[in-house]
Amino acid sequence: MSSLRVVVWGENVHEHKNPKVGAIYPKGMHAAIAEGIRERIPGAIVATATLQEPEHGLSEERLAKTDVLTWWGHLAHDQVSDAVADRVQRRVLEGMGLIVLHSAHYSKVFRRLMGTTCSLHWREADDKERLWVCNPGHPIASGLGPQFELPAEEMYGEPFLVPPPEEQVFISWFEGGEVFRSGCTWRRGNGRIFYFRPGHETYPTYHNVTVRQVIANAVRWAAPQGHWPEVGKSPNARVHPEPIRPKP
Amino acid sequence: MSSLRVVVWGENVHEHKNPKVGAIYPKGMHAAIAEGIRERIPGAIVATATLQEPEHGLSEERLAKTDVLTWWGHLAHDQVSDAVADRVQRRVLEGMGLIVLHSAHYSKVFRRLMGTTCSLHWREADDKERLWVCNPGHPIASGLGPQFELPAEEMYGEPFLVPPPEEQVFISWFEGGEVFRSGCTWRRGNGRIFYFRPGHETYPTYHNVTVRQVIANAVRWAAPQGHWPEVGKSPNARVHPEPIRPKP
Amino acid sequence: MSSLRVVVWGENVHEHKNPKVGAIYPKGMHAAIAEGIRERIPGAIVATATLQEPEHGLSEERLAKTDVLTWWGHLAHDQVSDAVADRVQRRVLEGMGLIVLHSAHYSKVFRRLMGTTCSLHWREADDKERLWVCNPGHPIASGLGPQFELPAEEMYGEPFLVPPPEEQVFISWFEGGEVFRSGCTWRRGNGRIFYFRPGHETYPTYHNVTVRQVIANAVRWAAPQGHWPEVGKSPNARVHPEPIRPKP
Amino acid sequence: MSSLRVVVWGENVHEHKNPKVGAIYPKGMHAAIAEGIRERIPGAIVATATLQEPEHGLSEERLAKTDVLTWWGHLAHDQVSDAVADRVQRRVLEGMGLIVLHSAHYSKVFRRLMGTTCSLHWREADDKERLWVCNPGHPIASGLGPQFELPAEEMYGEPFLVPPPEEQVFISWFEGGEVFRSGCTWRRGNGRIFYFRPGHETYPTYHNVTVRQVIANAVRWAAPQGHWPEVGKSPNARVHPEPIRPKP
Repeated sequence: MSSLRVVVWGENVHEHKNPKVGAIYPKGMHAAIAEGIRERIPGAIVATATLQEPEHGLSEERLAKTDVLTWWGHLAHDQVSDAVADRVQRRVLEGMGLIVLHSAHYSKVFRRLMGTTCSLHWREADDKERLWVCNPGHPIASGLGPQFELPAEEMYGEPFLVPPPEEQVFISWFEGGEVFRSGCTWRRGNGRIFYFRPGHETYPTYHNVTVRQVIANAVRWAAPQGHWPEVGKSPNARVHPEPIRPKP
Repeated sequence: MSSLRVVVWGENVHEHKNPKVGAIYPKGMHAAIAEGIRERIPGAIVATATLQEPEHGLSEERLAKTDVLTWWGHLAHDQVSDAVADRVQRRVLEGMGLIVLHSAHYSKVFRRLMGTTCSLHWREADDKERLWVCNPGHPIASGLGPQFELPAEEMYGEPFLVPPPEEQVFISWFEGGEVFRSGCTWRRGNGRIFYFRPGHETYPTYHNVTVRQVIANAVRWAAPQGHWPEVGKSPNARVHPEPIRPKP
Repeated sequence: MSSLRVVVWGENVHEHKNPKVGAIYPKGMHAAIAEGIRERIPGAIVATATLQEPEHGLSEERLAKTDVLTWWGHLAHDQVSDAVADRVQRRVLEGMGLIVLHSAHYSKVFRRLMGTTCSLHWREADDKERLWVCNPGHPIASGLGPQFELPAEEMYGEPFLVPPPEEQVFISWFEGGEVFRSGCTWRRGNGRIFYFRPGHETYPTYHNVTVRQVIANAVRWAAPQGHWPEVGKSPNARVHPEPIRPKP
Repeated sequence: MSSLRVVVWGENVHEHKNPKVGAIYPKGMHAAIAEGIRERIPGAIVATATLQEPEHGLSEERLAKTDVLTWWGHLAHDQVSDAVADRVQRRVLEGMGLIVLHSAHYSKVFRRLMGTTCSLHWREADDKERLWVCNPGHPIASGLGPQFELPAEEMYGEPFLVPPPEEQVFISWFEGGEVFRSGCTWRRGNGRIFYFRPGHETYPTYHNVTVRQVIANAVRWAAPQGHWPEVGKSPNARVHPEPIRPKP
């Protein structure tokens, strides 16, 4: 089997604006996320791409060679070009896996694939978050116990305006009294999509070993199961050459 | 429009064994549930049925005239006859609505319709429960705010082994640190099913005005939208009399 | 109960370009569709809107007072402004029903709500189409037999690249040998969506009594069940004023 | 990776009663199905089991070591013991894959997992069947073209009374004018389920190379992705030892 090719996309803005974020992620959040995947998927080819690169680092050629894309963004969703958002959407429909992280619930890519606002409630107050596993046998929960905790995170609360998830992998409990569907899967076309809630920029969440385990599990789970290259074509079908014989 | 015909089914065992339960529900839990529906759906014909009646109060004739059935059971799931469980299941497939309450997650009727164990975690420790609305526009959440609280309830925790709900109406937060998908809908055949978590027998939950509002909303929502009387038939189809002409 | 307010949207281009279409639909396809709904839903307020009107006839004010919108388009999907497409999408999420007809599978509105290409195969060869009812108890199939036929229609064939339908109401059989999921439902936010395949402009499909019955049934089915006005807001949540007491 | 362990279950009744069936499948239908899987999945350990064996060949020990089970039955669904049906259901929930073939739509195992009647229409008239691929990128359609044909088969027609499939892989077109959802997937607990329509006993369907390809693809697809051994337990949860600190 050929190597799994992963691209970790990072908006890469907070890291340079907010010293607190820069201190937690000196090489960028994307570098920490990529490191966690490399550690856990031996043989995977894990690269990064950022908003600031030409075509945001996501050229047609590169996406064509990408099996799974992870996406973190927050401040600059609108700076992602429509052309690149369209390109990512089409590649997901063809079969590329997509892992959507935290505030990327509001990314162009995720909103286009969901068709909804993807809105939610939020609070920054160092809430303890406890993530419960809803299907202990799910590959994305592999190696986890019944729940795991993050000592402090931004809170996200329901209602989360997405289409009904096909699988509920995690639901979060927050110290301040809220709940959130924090691990959800969907399929669109031939691609698998996983939304994973944790990862506010001011916390060291992407250094957490369990969070890294979940992301690596999700990357493996989202690896393409097949390919559908003509996903956007609407061909004119000829009449089948063999005439259909009527039933007597 | 003709009146909505509702049957509230109660196991009616705890009420006679446990003085605490008898004190909260002197006429039985089913009587309190029925009262709440009557208050909120003027014109509805709301009757009760219990385990102890012949055919558990659910004869073929009676079910045929029932639009929505609510079900509470706990200690005596096994005493419900297979014949009655089969009958209820078939009526749901035909179009009767079914509201499954609290410990009825383990009822024969619900387990047969779901095809799974319907297992979960639980704890009796007077946990505060906060139920969050996941879709504020859903008819079952009509008239509610973003969340509502029950001061003390039994805790139910994930994983809840059911097929993926079609709609997530409520998710519960528990004071002890757990979460639960406490309001879920499914459709089976032509029938609508709503599972609603609250209602442990030792708490006055079915006297709570918001709980009563949710149950009445759910009864209205689950009213039959159509009828499919031949739901279990596998007829032999004749060849269509008009011969199909082949395409030239 | 107040009257159901329906807007029938028509692209209104073929009717003026192609004499064959103009002969079948002298007042426009939208007029025929509206007439069919008026006939079957007494008391409904059924109006039309077309591409050529200011804001395509779908101002903010008008959409706010619309319960169900039907949409037919083909040649001019790109001429629908992004602002109006966004507006319709948001109203569906709030609770407005949407009936998507035939070639509107490629409309901006439907593609945005689905998140997929909505592509398919097609052929114009006067195929006989037979539509089978997959759930005889579904409100959209009310009054129909097991199947109904259209003597000649454009063929649409699988694969149809949409998210998995929540309900399969119809599947079409075509004389030339193809199949298609021709009646599908989805919910997005609080809105109900029904895609219905028949309706190529060169056939008198919207004069067919069964097709009219299906569309009227669908309009009734898609009527708003509730309202979610803040569907696109992501509010900052205050900490709940009442402190959470830890479990002993 | 350890070898995939497959058990092909056959009712094994028609083969001994009907000379026509015995001539097509001299070693039994199960032997032909097993042969097709062995040819296409090198290294898989493929065994058979039949109704007539003790515990129908499906002891607790054997099922515990089975990754994917295929099931064909028709005449003797009622002779399958409830204990074995329960056991298979529980193993599917834990993670075992299940491939349900043709008339096994009426098997105890499938009906319990679906919760519905699984009824349909049928006709034995040597109909040509054309199966269309609804998702060309799906692993179960790997290696197939847009459609494939069986020259003569029993017809199955809609309505097919099952819960909404999570993925529609195939839809069949029949020469006599019917359609059927002939390739459907569901997940229950941690197990994957695939229903595949073709395979009437009087036709050499399980010798067809494309049918064999689909079954082998499905077996690979249904291989367990994880394990959930405590699938039927409802444990009493202790209060989490670390007290929850209230939000200030």
